Amino acid sequence: MAQLQRLVVSPTQIAAEQIALTPAQQHYLGHVLRLRSGDRFIAMNGLGQSWLVALTTQAATAKILEAMQTQTELPISVTLLMALPKNGMDEVVRQVTELGIDQIVPILSDRSLLKPSPQKLDRWQRIAQEAAEQSERQMVPGVQAPQTWGEALQIWNTQHSICYICAERGMRSHLLSCLQALSAEEWSRGITIAIGCEGGWTEAEIERAIAVGYQPVSLGARILRAVTAPVVALSLVSAVLEENAPQISEPT
Amino acid sequence: MAQLQRLVVSPTQIAAEQIALTPAQQHYLGHVLRLRSGDRFIAMNGLGQSWLVALTTQAATAKILEAMQTQTELPISVTLLMALPKNGMDEVVRQVTELGIDQIVPILSDRSLLKPSPQKLDRWQRIAQEAAEQSERQMVPGVQAPQTWGEALQIWNTQHSICYICAERGMRSHLLSCLQALSAEEWSRGITIAIGCEGGWTEAEIERAIAVGYQPVSLGARILRAVTAPVVALSLVSAVLEENAPQISEPT
Repeated sequence: MAQLQRLVVSPTQIAAEQIALTPAQQHYLGHVLRLRSGDRFIAMNGLGQSWLVALTTQAATAKILEAMQTQTELPISVTLLMALPKNGMDEVVRQVTELGIDQIVPILSDRSLLKPSPQKLDRWQRIAQEAAEQSERQMVPGVQAPQTWGEALQIWNTQHSICYICAERGMRSHLLSCLQALSAEEWSRGITIAIGCEGGWTEAEIERAIAVGYQPVSLGARILRAVTAPVVALSLVSAVLEENAPQISEPT
Repeated sequence: MAQLQRLVVSPTQIAAEQIALTPAQQHYLGHVLRLRSGDRFIAMNGLGQSWLVALTTQAATAKILEAMQTQTELPISVTLLMALPKNGMDEVVRQVTELGIDQIVPILSDRSLLKPSPQKLDRWQRIAQEAAEQSERQMVPGVQAPQTWGEALQIWNTQHSICYICAERGMRSHLLSCLQALSAEEWSRGITIAIGCEGGWTEAEIERAIAVGYQPVSLGARILRAVTAPVVALSLVSAVLEENAPQISEPT
């Protein structure tokens, strides 16, 4: 069977086994994808549920045929705190979404040069939605409003989850070893990973994170660009979670 | 100490503890970086050796002060066979270079739409050199001329190294588990990883690879774009090599 197209719909569009399509969705399905009455696609509400649906004769609605059982989400919540890089944040959002991220929090760090506009934020949320559809996820990651490091550390600290900060210089434990040493109870608390922008975190930023329980980690012997590091970190988290982690208990 | 700038020089430029700089290198050092007589930088020959050097008063040469002892190379050779994607090969070359790749072989697969010009190949080699400098490697990866799948499989098969082909559909072992099961002797033979372009490998291509000893592997439950998959695969290879692998014996 050819892969069915995926489309994110709002929960408010769903009623009585019918999905009311927006004009933009009707245009996309009918004119871009050239689907016709009876053609099937997958509707996902971005919150973990998806359905096999068929376009109706009116083409303004789709009929729900059955709920999908596929599960491609990571079993725990993984958050990326990303110090805003000068370039390449679009690609970071896209790639970490493919790798199963749950929350993306842009950080206005000491070395961030970018102060993103609200339009940028909308754009990143749209990219996350597209990437979630294309990578066949059931959830669309949330892209938060940019925060200062101080604001972020009040929320994302060891009260919230297990926290790592990637620091390229100095002898640090490798993220892979740290993840493999986590117990099932620790995994179930969720993971937060902080990545610096060009030039890395300042020493003061690293110390501030360590003070609220972050463990500084390395991603290997070579220097990675700011836009590559999150992809590497998420590759390790998702691989260890899906392959090596002790049986994760239900998140509390 | 601030990070010193890195510059790749040809072995032919080095004689009697002096490096003869090309006009382009003189321009870069003097006008772009604004280095002056006596200023230091790191010269690397792209083959594993690097030196701390100082610009001489003539600015047309640099004097070798000492050999560098840093070692950021992976202990074995890792080759990427990359079916040419429609877009994004530049970024693939850059990111896998940051992760320690040794050889990049563009593959003209059944679903590749791109037939790259010789200029493209020069461009990829240049990107590999820049990325090797920036990620503080001692070696510059080689970018081979594009090959058909049949040509590539005659060279990169189990006679050459341990070989994996990433296949997104079907129940496959995860690459992480496969790597962690390798013995020191197997690691020392080197690793080859084949990644499909948009749409993936055809069934025939996968079967042909399996016939010469490739193991089909998964990179996780989600569908990754062609340009993300090599970064994920190399992230796992370099992390396991640097953290988990049994003591690697010298390559034969």
